[in-house]
Amino acid sequence: MLTFVTGNKNKFKEVSKILEGKIEIENQDIDAPEVQGSIEDVARAKCEYAARIVNGPTITEDTALCFNALNGLPGVYIKWFVKGIGLDGLNKLLVAFEDKSADAICTFAYTEGPNKPVHILQGVCSGKIVNPRGPPTFGWDSVFEPDEQQSDQPKTFAEMDPSEKNQISHRAKALKKLQDFLLK
Amino acid sequence: MLTFVTGNKNKFKEVSKILEGKIEIENQDIDAPEVQGSIEDVARAKCEYAARIVNGPTITEDTALCFNALNGLPGVYIKWFVKGIGLDGLNKLLVAFEDKSADAICTFAYTEGPNKPVHILQGVCSGKIVNPRGPPTFGWDSVFEPDEQQSDQPKTFAEMDPSEKNQISHRAKALKKLQDFLLK
Repeated sequence: MLTFVTGNKNKFKEVSKILEGKIEIENQDIDAPEVQGSIEDVARAKCEYAARIVNGPTITEDTALCFNALNGLPGVYIKWFVKGIGLDGLNKLLVAFEDKSADAICTFAYTEGPNKPVHILQGVCSGKIVNPRGPPTFGWDSVFEPDEQQSDQPKTFAEMDPSEKNQISHRAKALKKLQDFLLK
Repeated sequence: MLTFVTGNKNKFKEVSKILEGKIEIENQDIDAPEVQGSIEDVARAKCEYAARIVNGPTITEDTALCFNALNGLPGVYIKWFVKGIGLDGLNKLLVAFEDKSADAICTFAYTEGPNKPVHILQGVCSGKIVNPRGPPTFGWDSVFEPDEQQSDQPKTFAEMDPSEKNQISHRAKALKKLQDFLLK
């Protein structure tokens, strides 16, 4: 039995759907402290902490939004920025910088259990930061316009329907890697 | 015996000088993980971690630089921003915001030992973010111009001599509170 540690039921559904019939998976919500540091540091620390509580095979997930003009920041701190200055604030941060490009990065961390190695599986979706468009339903989706688009009229993540987003998103790409890794 | 956990010899000297002849203090450099969260969360987690290793009375210290236009950010993440985008970058972040004011906050956390309460002692120095002036010797000192000034010609922290800075700085104010608390 594999435990996906997340407080987000939708993320759990996404992962369990992919592994359906192949690997048994359950959900646990553990309030694991998030450390400061690189994306890998943050993912590793969270997974190690969670695995000590789960005491068995554990997956955790982290999302970062990395502005290239800011050398990768806010990165793992994006949620504090969304909370603190809002989506308009994210745009204002970049006013003085010509480069509006950003990478959305989804990181799964997997370990067999406490004191076992942690494996990092990442998906990256490149795009740019734009003024909010589309419903402000999920995090920063309305200010992120991926480079990969299905039509000439570019859409933000928030303007895409889920099936469209799931073909190109950072999470979809990371899930693909996680699947390949777990089912190899 | 009190242990001040810091990798910074100058900070240790500053604290030990204030407590000289009153409280015996030693220095230990522990690589305590820094969590994400509020200033108090970060300070508390670091002190609790360090106290488990010290196994006795422990002090830790944290510094935050909080831009009011950014609702207190970068705050505890300031070191990643200085590292990532430099001092000019800090100014560029604020170009689109009228409010350039910022609070420099020094936080000491003290506990008697593992599983004992953590006491938070803070000093705040209000000022504003300016283009770098003075030697780039210490962190973000050259872009922070405190409101409290000794002459009509305002200086950044970096332009002040240490005795001048030590009369008004966030660290000096926090040290005063730490001293009052420990010697009460």
